[in-house]
Amino acid sequence: MAMKIPSKYIDEAVDQLSSLPGIGKKTALRLVLQLLNRSESEIERFSNAFVEMKKEVKKCKSCGNISDSELCSICENPGRDNSQICVVEDIRDIMALESTNYFKGIYHVLGGIISPMDGVGPSDLNINTLLNKLENGKVKEIIFALSANMEGDTTNFYLYKKMAPYNIEITCLSRGVAIGTELQYADELTLGRSLINRQPFKLNE
Amino acid sequence: MAMKIPSKYIDEAVDQLSSLPGIGKKTALRLVLQLLNRSESEIERFSNAFVEMKKEVKKCKSCGNISDSELCSICENPGRDNSQICVVEDIRDIMALESTNYFKGIYHVLGGIISPMDGVGPSDLNINTLLNKLENGKVKEIIFALSANMEGDTTNFYLYKKMAPYNIEITCLSRGVAIGTELQYADELTLGRSLINRQPFKLNE
Repeated sequence: MAMKIPSKYIDEAVDQLSSLPGIGKKTALRLVLQLLNRSESEIERFSNAFVEMKKEVKKCKSCGNISDSELCSICENPGRDNSQICVVEDIRDIMALESTNYFKGIYHVLGGIISPMDGVGPSDLNINTLLNKLENGKVKEIIFALSANMEGDTTNFYLYKKMAPYNIEITCLSRGVAIGTELQYADELTLGRSLINRQPFKLNE
Repeated sequence: MAMKIPSKYIDEAVDQLSSLPGIGKKTALRLVLQLLNRSESEIERFSNAFVEMKKEVKKCKSCGNISDSELCSICENPGRDNSQICVVEDIRDIMALESTNYFKGIYHVLGGIISPMDGVGPSDLNINTLLNKLENGKVKEIIFALSANMEGDTTNFYLYKKMAPYNIEITCLSRGVAIGTELQYADELTLGRSLINRQPFKLNE
């Protein structure tokens, strides 16, 4: 159903909101009318949040994570182990990994993965800055934490080749049946891999 | 999974976006990171849309529809029939009815429906302004186009009683099996009503 919006200002607000991924015109209209009911100061605060964010948020000059200062809170933290670098595609992967509380090293954000279909090649990613970190010989382990798909595998392989001269331990997140999954619902590729990479059974893991 | 966002500015932007109905923190974060990739001027435009809207959008002083001027484009239009007033709950209902292209009268927005459960009584709605419009005797028909639920029925009944002295034709949107519905899936209340209110069969309707 094509809705005719009787105000060019609301039309523009709907256009702006529906420019966000996954938000259609109809949802945007519902949200905009909800905003319209708020006070002027609330709308100011809503709008300012995005302008301020754009103005203030920086990229950590070491790892590429988002940060309010030059270095992100992880790179800045003296308690983190600089000899372990976990390579991720996106800043959201850092948040996901951090929420596990299992990793005490630092991160490196590639800013994407190699995907010829989308026109993303190695030169589009933060690969050189990663290799530069290996020069001083202090890094002992690189952990690949990229997506478990073809693009991720390609990127892992490319990085692996580039890092071969450095004599560094290179690891990859384990892949297998997700915890909580009923075996009959696991896909056959994952199941096959988890059979090949089976591990010694340990109690209380 | 609780995400720890490493920037108070992003945190605030996520808070603001997730204050909209139906947008959770995780969706908001995805949208905010997408916004972060845009240029400063794009963000300005995004933010301004909401401030401008709040500043510029008025309510039509006649019907309560949203409008960029004193009177909305429908009330202002000399081609619309002022003797027919369609009573709706919300401005979105006007947009829905307008998109059918079947109605040539004008509207009146109640701003809600009588719902004691939500604490909405007749005095919270634009009922007096509607009754005032009946005073001059030029209105010939009032069409109730409220929700087809208990609150809608209650409001219809209340308005009907209030309008009785005016000797005006009062009609209501027809209720029945929705077009395109397979009969076996229609609910029994709707089906029962559409049987009681059955209409003479007409070809090519």
